[in-house]
Amino acid sequence: MAAGVACGVRNSGGRDLGLLFSDRPCVTAAVFTRNVVKGAPLIVTKEAVEAGGARAVVVNSGNANAATGKQGLSDARAMQALAAEALKIETGEVAVASTGVIGVYLPMDCISEGLEETVGVLGPDGASFAEAILTTDTRAKEIAVRVDVGGRAVTIGGTAKGSGMIHPHMGTMLAFLTTDANVERECLQKTLSSATERTFNRVTVDGDTSPSDMAILMANGAAGNDLMTLDHPDYPAFAEAVETVARGLAKEIARDGEGATRLVEVVVEGAKDEPSAAMLAKSVIGSSLVKAAVFGEDANWGRVLVAMGYAGVPFDPDEVELFFGPVKVFSGGEPVPHEEAEANAALASGEVVITVRMGEGDASASAWGCDLTCEYVEINGSYRT
Amino acid sequence: MAAGVACGVRNSGGRDLGLLFSDRPCVTAAVFTRNVVKGAPLIVTKEAVEAGGARAVVVNSGNANAATGKQGLSDARAMQALAAEALKIETGEVAVASTGVIGVYLPMDCISEGLEETVGVLGPDGASFAEAILTTDTRAKEIAVRVDVGGRAVTIGGTAKGSGMIHPHMGTMLAFLTTDANVERECLQKTLSSATERTFNRVTVDGDTSPSDMAILMANGAAGNDLMTLDHPDYPAFAEAVETVARGLAKEIARDGEGATRLVEVVVEGAKDEPSAAMLAKSVIGSSLVKAAVFGEDANWGRVLVAMGYAGVPFDPDEVELFFGPVKVFSGGEPVPHEEAEANAALASGEVVITVRMGEGDASASAWGCDLTCEYVEINGSYRT
Repeated sequence: MAAGVACGVRNSGGRDLGLLFSDRPCVTAAVFTRNVVKGAPLIVTKEAVEAGGARAVVVNSGNANAATGKQGLSDARAMQALAAEALKIETGEVAVASTGVIGVYLPMDCISEGLEETVGVLGPDGASFAEAILTTDTRAKEIAVRVDVGGRAVTIGGTAKGSGMIHPHMGTMLAFLTTDANVERECLQKTLSSATERTFNRVTVDGDTSPSDMAILMANGAAGNDLMTLDHPDYPAFAEAVETVARGLAKEIARDGEGATRLVEVVVEGAKDEPSAAMLAKSVIGSSLVKAAVFGEDANWGRVLVAMGYAGVPFDPDEVELFFGPVKVFSGGEPVPHEEAEANAALASGEVVITVRMGEGDASASAWGCDLTCEYVEINGSYRT
Repeated sequence: MAAGVACGVRNSGGRDLGLLFSDRPCVTAAVFTRNVVKGAPLIVTKEAVEAGGARAVVVNSGNANAATGKQGLSDARAMQALAAEALKIETGEVAVASTGVIGVYLPMDCISEGLEETVGVLGPDGASFAEAILTTDTRAKEIAVRVDVGGRAVTIGGTAKGSGMIHPHMGTMLAFLTTDANVERECLQKTLSSATERTFNRVTVDGDTSPSDMAILMANGAAGNDLMTLDHPDYPAFAEAVETVARGLAKEIARDGEGATRLVEVVVEGAKDEPSAAMLAKSVIGSSLVKAAVFGEDANWGRVLVAMGYAGVPFDPDEVELFFGPVKVFSGGEPVPHEEAEANAALASGEVVITVRMGEGDASASAWGCDLTCEYVEINGSYRT
């Protein structure tokens, strides 16, 4: 069950308090930001997830409750307790998340009143929850897939928010995944960690890792399948289904990057191993110069090669091939003659693909980002005002 | 002696070929980019510096001669040989540098004709050289200091270019320093490397490390001082003088960052060691969100703390104090009540100082950058067109 209401945290109005709730206990996995600075809600949520498994998540947007000291931690605990009381469950069964401005105390009156309202309207309403967690996002992000586990249909659904301060090196932005699968706890955590590494951790909007990043995957077993473990014959299908949900949300976050006009995917193929491929892809997707060139529809492939050059991965530029869309622009250490207009046209669509072939092995990795626009600067020059 | 002429490499016209020349042999030190992708001129110049010491430098702007394969290397060697011939010195005494668009072959006809003209007008004309090396820079960058060495006045002068693709992790943008001091070779290299680490390597405009970065320091001994070595009693004064020139150029590069409206200095004090302080300062100066907030004159200090949090340096946020100009905004893990207007005003001047006190020790470091503006996006969305 889910709900989202407007409780007055966001100055701009609109839904800003969301609640996810499972009517039965859950096994829960989570990953958190590795930023040294952590929002107070992450401390509370980590405790809850480690103690057993949250079956409810309460989230506000408009205020990150980060860099708020003792008062902030006490507010996060109060938010957890208020939700538990309203839901008539244990305090430790509630996870808490906050996203928005950093360094401002939470208006607890709003949260308290909003929580009562939210519990009253809980239902099959993922859409209002997905809306309530947004900040500078321009659209809600939802995806669900169904997969067969031991003959039972199991559903995995997810929603996420994220538009700026997006460069999740280890944790991620806010993402909430739920499944009715019956899953062993260790298996669930491994599934989420692995999917996060390949999806949320491959997104960058601006290179800034948020102190509020977290992804949670709650499994309540309502599907009635036999227990999913790492050894289960259907584990690969289940893990792929979770990764599909996470990848879909990751791409939606990149597409909805602050000020972005297009989704950019960088595919590195033929690398010697996946970590190298991922480092190269992330370096290219994170380059301000590459992002500005995509915005300008200028097939300036030299910047792609340069960004690979400072990725921290050794390679031989003479073995690299670069493609903008289908157009080969660089090979054998030298420019490949091509129609400039065709290469530029490959940057003009809503989804831009830049492909790098390394000629070293069989590993590949993708990373997702967006173009850099004036609107990004405008949004972030006046975020708090 | 120096000169700069217009030879037709830059589409936009203007001076684009520069020559520095010492009438006597030089001891020369250099540092180069650590980008895996290196421009052809760096290979040629590294050979020259290692073989003995360049006494001439020929530089073109408008074309980086990078990612140009065998043809590019052959062009760089030809440029070196043409300059040596015109100056009637050994080929190995000429350093070569190129800056501009990546992935386009050098127009060697222009270079060849331009070199003859340049040699013809060589003289005490550093200004025309400083102008000839610029690309998207809006102004020339020159600085000189004089220092006493063993009773003799020694002069150190320098010029640099750099405005975009500025994030010199190990090498630097193009910088040319000259001195009439008589200096031991090892001492000269150590002096340049150390100054580079504290100055050029502390600048970031956009986080992109160029494949063309280099800094050269040529010493021809014309001042007639007794040989400068690391043990010389005046070495600290000499090293400080070189660092002053390098710091001056580094700050000018930051101030002239593509699209920038203001110079930003981040000072980290009270750190446990200088490398930690430098990592923290560079992380803050490199944050797109901090840079956009400075542009918008929005004292969003949370972003400063967040950028420190992903610098890769462990620290306790509760021990940190943050200042925007003179205004303390964060201390003891909590926001410090302050006049918002005063903090915003601290971001409105041409030189913005953000100070971080760590409370860990006595080490400090500064880093320099600029704000992120729409103009940066516009410049880099259409650089080649």
